[in-house]
Amino acid sequence: MKEIIDLAKGLQPWLVETRRRLHRHPELAWEEVETSRFVEEELRKLGIETKKVAKTGVIGILGSGGRVVALRADMDALPIQEENEVPYRSEVPGKMHACGHDAHVAMLLGAARILARIRPKGTVKFIFQPAEEGGLGGKRMAESGELDDVEAFFGIHVWAHLESGKIGIRGGPLWASADAYHIAVKGKGGHGAMPHRTVDPISVLVSIFEESQRIITREVSPLEPLVITVGKVEAGTTWNVIPGEAHMWGTIRAFTQETRDYAVRRLGEIAEAVARAHRAEATFELTMEPIPPTVNDEGLARMAKEALSPYLEVVEAPRELVAEDFSFYSRIAPALFILLGIRNEEKGIVYPHHHPRFNVDEDVLWMGSATHAILAKRFLES
Amino acid sequence: MKEIIDLAKGLQPWLVETRRRLHRHPELAWEEVETSRFVEEELRKLGIETKKVAKTGVIGILGSGGRVVALRADMDALPIQEENEVPYRSEVPGKMHACGHDAHVAMLLGAARILARIRPKGTVKFIFQPAEEGGLGGKRMAESGELDDVEAFFGIHVWAHLESGKIGIRGGPLWASADAYHIAVKGKGGHGAMPHRTVDPISVLVSIFEESQRIITREVSPLEPLVITVGKVEAGTTWNVIPGEAHMWGTIRAFTQETRDYAVRRLGEIAEAVARAHRAEATFELTMEPIPPTVNDEGLARMAKEALSPYLEVVEAPRELVAEDFSFYSRIAPALFILLGIRNEEKGIVYPHHHPRFNVDEDVLWMGSATHAILAKRFLES
Amino acid sequence: MKEIIDLAKGLQPWLVETRRRLHRHPELAWEEVETSRFVEEELRKLGIETKKVAKTGVIGILGSGGRVVALRADMDALPIQEENEVPYRSEVPGKMHACGHDAHVAMLLGAARILARIRPKGTVKFIFQPAEEGGLGGKRMAESGELDDVEAFFGIHVWAHLESGKIGIRGGPLWASADAYHIAVKGKGGHGAMPHRTVDPISVLVSIFEESQRIITREVSPLEPLVITVGKVEAGTTWNVIPGEAHMWGTIRAFTQETRDYAVRRLGEIAEAVARAHRAEATFELTMEPIPPTVNDEGLARMAKEALSPYLEVVEAPRELVAEDFSFYSRIAPALFILLGIRNEEKGIVYPHHHPRFNVDEDVLWMGSATHAILAKRFLES
Amino acid sequence: MKEIIDLAKGLQPWLVETRRRLHRHPELAWEEVETSRFVEEELRKLGIETKKVAKTGVIGILGSGGRVVALRADMDALPIQEENEVPYRSEVPGKMHACGHDAHVAMLLGAARILARIRPKGTVKFIFQPAEEGGLGGKRMAESGELDDVEAFFGIHVWAHLESGKIGIRGGPLWASADAYHIAVKGKGGHGAMPHRTVDPISVLVSIFEESQRIITREVSPLEPLVITVGKVEAGTTWNVIPGEAHMWGTIRAFTQETRDYAVRRLGEIAEAVARAHRAEATFELTMEPIPPTVNDEGLARMAKEALSPYLEVVEAPRELVAEDFSFYSRIAPALFILLGIRNEEKGIVYPHHHPRFNVDEDVLWMGSATHAILAKRFLES
Repeated sequence: MKEIIDLAKGLQPWLVETRRRLHRHPELAWEEVETSRFVEEELRKLGIETKKVAKTGVIGILGSGGRVVALRADMDALPIQEENEVPYRSEVPGKMHACGHDAHVAMLLGAARILARIRPKGTVKFIFQPAEEGGLGGKRMAESGELDDVEAFFGIHVWAHLESGKIGIRGGPLWASADAYHIAVKGKGGHGAMPHRTVDPISVLVSIFEESQRIITREVSPLEPLVITVGKVEAGTTWNVIPGEAHMWGTIRAFTQETRDYAVRRLGEIAEAVARAHRAEATFELTMEPIPPTVNDEGLARMAKEALSPYLEVVEAPRELVAEDFSFYSRIAPALFILLGIRNEEKGIVYPHHHPRFNVDEDVLWMGSATHAILAKRFLES
Repeated sequence: MKEIIDLAKGLQPWLVETRRRLHRHPELAWEEVETSRFVEEELRKLGIETKKVAKTGVIGILGSGGRVVALRADMDALPIQEENEVPYRSEVPGKMHACGHDAHVAMLLGAARILARIRPKGTVKFIFQPAEEGGLGGKRMAESGELDDVEAFFGIHVWAHLESGKIGIRGGPLWASADAYHIAVKGKGGHGAMPHRTVDPISVLVSIFEESQRIITREVSPLEPLVITVGKVEAGTTWNVIPGEAHMWGTIRAFTQETRDYAVRRLGEIAEAVARAHRAEATFELTMEPIPPTVNDEGLARMAKEALSPYLEVVEAPRELVAEDFSFYSRIAPALFILLGIRNEEKGIVYPHHHPRFNVDEDVLWMGSATHAILAKRFLES
Repeated sequence: MKEIIDLAKGLQPWLVETRRRLHRHPELAWEEVETSRFVEEELRKLGIETKKVAKTGVIGILGSGGRVVALRADMDALPIQEENEVPYRSEVPGKMHACGHDAHVAMLLGAARILARIRPKGTVKFIFQPAEEGGLGGKRMAESGELDDVEAFFGIHVWAHLESGKIGIRGGPLWASADAYHIAVKGKGGHGAMPHRTVDPISVLVSIFEESQRIITREVSPLEPLVITVGKVEAGTTWNVIPGEAHMWGTIRAFTQETRDYAVRRLGEIAEAVARAHRAEATFELTMEPIPPTVNDEGLARMAKEALSPYLEVVEAPRELVAEDFSFYSRIAPALFILLGIRNEEKGIVYPHHHPRFNVDEDVLWMGSATHAILAKRFLES
Repeated sequence: MKEIIDLAKGLQPWLVETRRRLHRHPELAWEEVETSRFVEEELRKLGIETKKVAKTGVIGILGSGGRVVALRADMDALPIQEENEVPYRSEVPGKMHACGHDAHVAMLLGAARILARIRPKGTVKFIFQPAEEGGLGGKRMAESGELDDVEAFFGIHVWAHLESGKIGIRGGPLWASADAYHIAVKGKGGHGAMPHRTVDPISVLVSIFEESQRIITREVSPLEPLVITVGKVEAGTTWNVIPGEAHMWGTIRAFTQETRDYAVRRLGEIAEAVARAHRAEATFELTMEPIPPTVNDEGLARMAKEALSPYLEVVEAPRELVAEDFSFYSRIAPALFILLGIRNEEKGIVYPHHHPRFNVDEDVLWMGSATHAILAKRFLES
């Protein structure tokens, strides 16, 4: 393992250069053509077999037989205009690696270089997935059939809310499930001065919002984190006409499938029942394929803490109710999603993910590569 | 008619004495034994036939054949401790004529004296009813069978919100219907720290209150007066236990049977539907026989305005959402309920009905007798 | 008066032709150029002096000295595509006389013809106003100075909710005040999964809606008609982001200035206080110059009933909470707004105002002219 | 340590007898006179010095100098009528050890016997506290001055929601803070038919309930458990009168002082602001001295897991939002509160704490004594 650390440190200049190269040329979800090509070339240079999966996804395969471990990076950028003034600033207007996927790709390529050198027994699959940002690329990869033999998945996310260089590991739920819903209320429109000749859908929408608060405050255990948010409301066209319909869109977040299922079911039930109570009709639908919670395998988490602690600063990863399609891999085998701290106040790297001034403390890149390589080796040899 | 006015004025000392005599000896609903006996004696002195109806009620019958008109007074007092310092103050602790029914009896007896003297053609029925205050005495009288031949009903209420001496007449709805309801929510009790193991009935009660607001604001015409009030809430026994049940009691008031029926039905529907939406059960029940709205016959109202205007100051009666069981008589025949102003700031007669300092400006008593007599004569001769 | 009736009936073919001519060529608010020119020409033909007022408005003046009465018609059409299949269908795509102002103009021109013939003593002012539909043309006319000497205003609105040929007259409040408001809530946006790092303005908007219900159900007398409607809500752009702002637009309607003032004040207060309670800020603003309630002068109403009853079927006008800028004229002098029934089920004339299939039963046009003329003559001679 | 386990097992018959003796004679909070006397006698028999503290509390002191560790049991019973049919059933009508404090006392006396025998170096303080059930006996003991030198506190609670024999240990928050609050709304009473002449306090209470939901759903992190419960509502006396006041009582539970402080502050703010928005006044007050959250020291938790795992089945303790005044001891020094499973379906021991059929699986009593003794020894020798 010490060797891996040394190799990783040696890769640092290459990692920085690679990350910046990717940063200059961001590609949005399902459009990762150049990134994908670059990844394939780099892997092939190392003698690693590659497969194109899920349109722009790449799987690299090192070794064969024995245990099978997978390491994952995501490749897509965001439709955000970069506001950082750096030499490697995005060269594509309106697009930016504002979530750190450029670092993810660089770190995983670094791990490939290390592992290609030390050749652990067994098989390593390098997953470079497209479309993490709202595209469910992870789901497509997981369902491709190419990963069915994997026995453990590891993923790393650089994390702006953790101090630079800290490795956040936590068994159990780390990130949340994500559902997107749409509630439509159908009433009966009419003159704003004659509400009694209408069935006012705005009034019903308000009631659904109110009544659904109870799911969190009265129905679900206070120990079970749950968020129900309405992000968008749209109803009516002018001040003096009661419209025929009203709409809202929002998201549900939870840490367990049970809580998520309960909240989804109850929000729908309440919407429909409250609308009926007011003589209207409401429909509730999910507008996106649900993302499961990211639940880390306790055994892998313990293993990772033990394996990494001698070389890196391991801390308990802070939980959030954000979501990741990495969770789809855990349907195949135990999985562990790790946070790598990149917050560095001295360098002004303090902006949250998806912010136009988001950046990565590049000094940690080697740690990501080392973490990937150590966990792969450790798992294969266990 | 002029003769009636003169006769009424001549009765004024007797009216005052009679009203005070009644005021000193108030009797509660369904206990009007002495009042009833007194009324019977007075009527018999005048040669008017009497019948005991509805326990303590009295009907006096003057004349026979021809058209039949009825004049009504109510006799019961209230469980209120009088706070007026007057010579004729209530002599019964905790009971008081705080609504003016003492004046009503006196005025109607005065009318009997006048009509016994002038003997209009046709038949006059004098109704002295028990239990107007929550006892539905009017309903019992109306359903006794003794009034089935009546062709018009007139009633007078002294009114503290109208200037002394003014006669308030209005065709159409004057006072409201009254319903008393009870909503019980059955949930599932438990520890206050574990709401998710309960079905919190207090939370559901709150939701029912909220959602039922829409009946008034969105469902019923803004031109249709409607009140839904919760007067009493009772739930739970202590701060840290979620109870199994929660209760509220209230009243519904409206001016038309349609609006009343709608509100009663919808409040029940909303209570049940909202409870179900929250996994609880609600029952809605009326705890009192409904009192219909007091809707004055337009024809009688016009007739009364014309007949009284030459002698008395007639004004448009102010409407309120209070209720009166006089409304039951209008199920038999057209009816007119008249307000007689008794508010006199100079005399300090400004307290509302049911107040411990309520009083009647006695100067108007003769007007009440005259009004009764004029309307009876006018109707019989029309 | 009988002469007026006969003259009016004789004008019926001309009235129909004139109304159709106007119907074919609808002009929107403040664009009534051709209508205005046509009105001027017609008035001049009759020897009636004209003045252009308020851009496209016309005032015709007949006679001089003596009492001064004004008769009013509005001229603007609506941005609605006509769906009637009639020979005189609108020839302007997307514009239509869907409220009956074409009939109003024709009827008032008819009245001008009658009055020009019978020449009542005193002065008649014919008001052809622009922009009744949301443009406050009535306010501009009333404030022009040209009507300051008027002693009584009369206006007629054809009315789809009244049987054809009935003349609806009511003293006191007939139509409502109208206010247009906008409530903006400023919170703090953020990630939909992290509501605690935001101040959710949608949640606050919901609360403002809920809490403002009490203005109607608990604060204002149930005898005072009041409507508070939200017609439009706009907040957020997508499902998983809590926006920084949320907006709603709506209208307040009342029958008295007191109730209107109270509701406007309280809605603003509640919006601001509830927002503050939730750590947000709300602003409440009126986005239109308030329209006062249309309160008919009781004396003019009585006069009109007496004057018209011998010739036309006069009924009590049904009240609504719609609004009219005719109300601005009553700031100058007593005013009376009359409804003329045009609903004719046999002819299929049953669609409400502002509906693409709205139409006018033309058989009543002469009644409108006659009503205008009779009331002018009667008032001038009183 | 093995010796302790053996000693504890040997005490089992005595532990059962002692627990049953206490079970037969339950004493309520602050009335633990006989229990207290019994404890003192038992301690003295062992040569352990005793002090009476906080009325009926007892502190036993074994050894002197060196490190100081404290072991705690609570002694009070509950005002519940026992429904178990057992030979040792409560002999006091209406009182019962329905929370397991009888077992706590027996187990700690057993630990005293063991420790008196093995005499670890340093000082052990045995805390037998009164009035855990709502009496804040723990606070009184902690503030007595007698425990100021303690360096670590250990407490054990038998736990009906954990399988018999399992030892539940968790670092960090285990149980919640508890606050009891009272919200009083002052409005203006009046007739139920005339809400506009009142300020309806029931309506305001409902609004406060509604608006306060947002504290949990929008203001506090979904990762921070928080409960706000209303357990009792009281308002009004009858259906047709709007009362002048309305009241509610409830509890707030949280796992961190910050969340608790925030929720207490915000509930008060919202109550007052919402009441003012509706022209009423609300007061918010805490009716009980706040109980802090039971937060276990991470170091002690690790130490306990290591020390106990070789001999007993140690599991991660399930969290709840119930509260314990054990939390007051942690203001003095690091503290650890441990759950000892007593749920045994075969024996029918399945009823929750405070249930009339609650019982303790006595087979685990020796484990409690052993746990106390092992932790004391381990801490003193560390």
